[in-house]
Amino acid sequence: MAAAETLAARIERGDRTALARMISWAENGDARFAGELAALWPRVGRAWRVGVTGPPGAGKSTLVNELARVERSRERSVGICAVDPSSPFTGGALLGDRIRMDDRTLDPGVFIRSMASRGSHGGLARAAASACDVLDAFGFATILLETVGVGQAEYDVLDAADTVVVVLCPGAGDGIQAMKAGLLEVADVLVVNKSDLPGAERLQSDLTEAVHVRFTKRAWAVPVVAASAGTAQGTEDVLEAIARHRAHVESSGLEAARRRKRIEQVRHSLSEQLSERLWGPAGLRDRVEVELAQGHSPHAIAAALLAEVTMGLSKLSEARR
Amino acid sequence: MAAAETLAARIERGDRTALARMISWAENGDARFAGELAALWPRVGRAWRVGVTGPPGAGKSTLVNELARVERSRERSVGICAVDPSSPFTGGALLGDRIRMDDRTLDPGVFIRSMASRGSHGGLARAAASACDVLDAFGFATILLETVGVGQAEYDVLDAADTVVVVLCPGAGDGIQAMKAGLLEVADVLVVNKSDLPGAERLQSDLTEAVHVRFTKRAWAVPVVAASAGTAQGTEDVLEAIARHRAHVESSGLEAARRRKRIEQVRHSLSEQLSERLWGPAGLRDRVEVELAQGHSPHAIAAALLAEVTMGLSKLSEARR
Repeated sequence: MAAAETLAARIERGDRTALARMISWAENGDARFAGELAALWPRVGRAWRVGVTGPPGAGKSTLVNELARVERSRERSVGICAVDPSSPFTGGALLGDRIRMDDRTLDPGVFIRSMASRGSHGGLARAAASACDVLDAFGFATILLETVGVGQAEYDVLDAADTVVVVLCPGAGDGIQAMKAGLLEVADVLVVNKSDLPGAERLQSDLTEAVHVRFTKRAWAVPVVAASAGTAQGTEDVLEAIARHRAHVESSGLEAARRRKRIEQVRHSLSEQLSERLWGPAGLRDRVEVELAQGHSPHAIAAALLAEVTMGLSKLSEARR
Repeated sequence: MAAAETLAARIERGDRTALARMISWAENGDARFAGELAALWPRVGRAWRVGVTGPPGAGKSTLVNELARVERSRERSVGICAVDPSSPFTGGALLGDRIRMDDRTLDPGVFIRSMASRGSHGGLARAAASACDVLDAFGFATILLETVGVGQAEYDVLDAADTVVVVLCPGAGDGIQAMKAGLLEVADVLVVNKSDLPGAERLQSDLTEAVHVRFTKRAWAVPVVAASAGTAQGTEDVLEAIARHRAHVESSGLEAARRRKRIEQVRHSLSEQLSERLWGPAGLRDRVEVELAQGHSPHAIAAALLAEVTMGLSKLSEARR
């Protein structure tokens, strides 16, 4: 009897079921993932990864759908990974936003995956980056990574993107909120969506000025593009801005830029797995509970644990000398 | 010459300069903090800690100011710790929201501290919880911990609170956005602020229904309180709801509830410090960069590092047997 074909081998020959399963492994932190991805690793790095973020209600999903439509009309295949915000308690993703993507789901040149935020900080970024790696290895030309721009965990997701598109729409204080939340700083391309609404021109001029004032020393001038994804306007302008950003990154050192992001990926991955190891079953919880009951402060307990863990690490480096 | 008085001793006798400095130590991760707090630890646990959160623009700062005003009129001292959202790039806090609090700042029964989110996930929660501990030890009766409800890092800040007040205001889709972002799940008290605006009654009935449907099995029925902090209406109702929640928690096991939160505090603190140790100067960055350049996948590198770190830990536990 022949040995079972590996997931990596199945993905190499375009098996979408294998693709879906491997992304599930990434999402669930399955121990087999690292080995399979290592086998696929030489195939990773060919796709262009576009992060699409912005506040809730800005029209991210609609724009992603539009970007996918135009890419498909150019015969470029598209992988979509959508990270939904979720409660730290329920852990569930609300799939309402995905409904409009239905017209893409029957196209074999498109693969759509929703991913729930699990409350685990590093976990989400790791899972999203891993999903992009798998989509990349599978051979999609463009990867659209959608995440709501509301917090650190969501920003970390953007580490996986080559180009970050920040979507805003006119509305009370939206420009100001975006600046507060740091959305401007992560943007490579700014999109003023719903550009037919009142206030769109004002938002566009405010953003153009803010970008001009803040990022005067940067080599890449962040463009501010008007779009109305609901009526399919401006989508090609957005793609053109992404293409210009891609050319800029490629001419100024794509490998170095990606390597910086991959270092963060290693950092998140290690941190998350270490935390699981320390605090999972048979972990530190019981001991900490006892020490708290004895009247020690959390800070003193953490300091003592850090000393122990660090000593373990230094003993290891001594042993290897 | 007498030995210099410790910060802990100065805080015990009500020195506000020492209080400010010790909170700075907490914020900066100063190594001396744990020792000083250990000395103060028997004094920690007397204050009631109220977390106030909600989306940007809901009127959190105004409500916090109002709550402080009414508490002061009842001769209860108030410590305020406000966590501002900030960019992962600039690290700066926008202090505009704090301006309205000026009328509290000259009152010796009030202490206000703004804290910038530094991009470090565990760091923010640790610093805020530590600041609350110091304010508690100083002797403030009520601690108001304000944080914008937009992401995991901000939710983690709420681990330090005994009662979480979620502030919403009428506006397009606010109730739905709150449900999406998991704000409802963290609420012990819901406040419909700006209750004089159109849509307030609808928001209140929507929230009342959502709470009824979702949390039917919980022992604490989350109240939905109307307020208009700008016109000082409803503040006493909010305080009354907080007082009822306090009575509920105290009757159903305050110590156990606080201990669960303190375990999370230890976890965050250890994770953050461990990450600094692993990735700070002379850390893993150079090695990871070399391995990436050699063509290893981030996942494989992380897996190898995890194995090494874990082996170090197990070697330690062997050594202690």
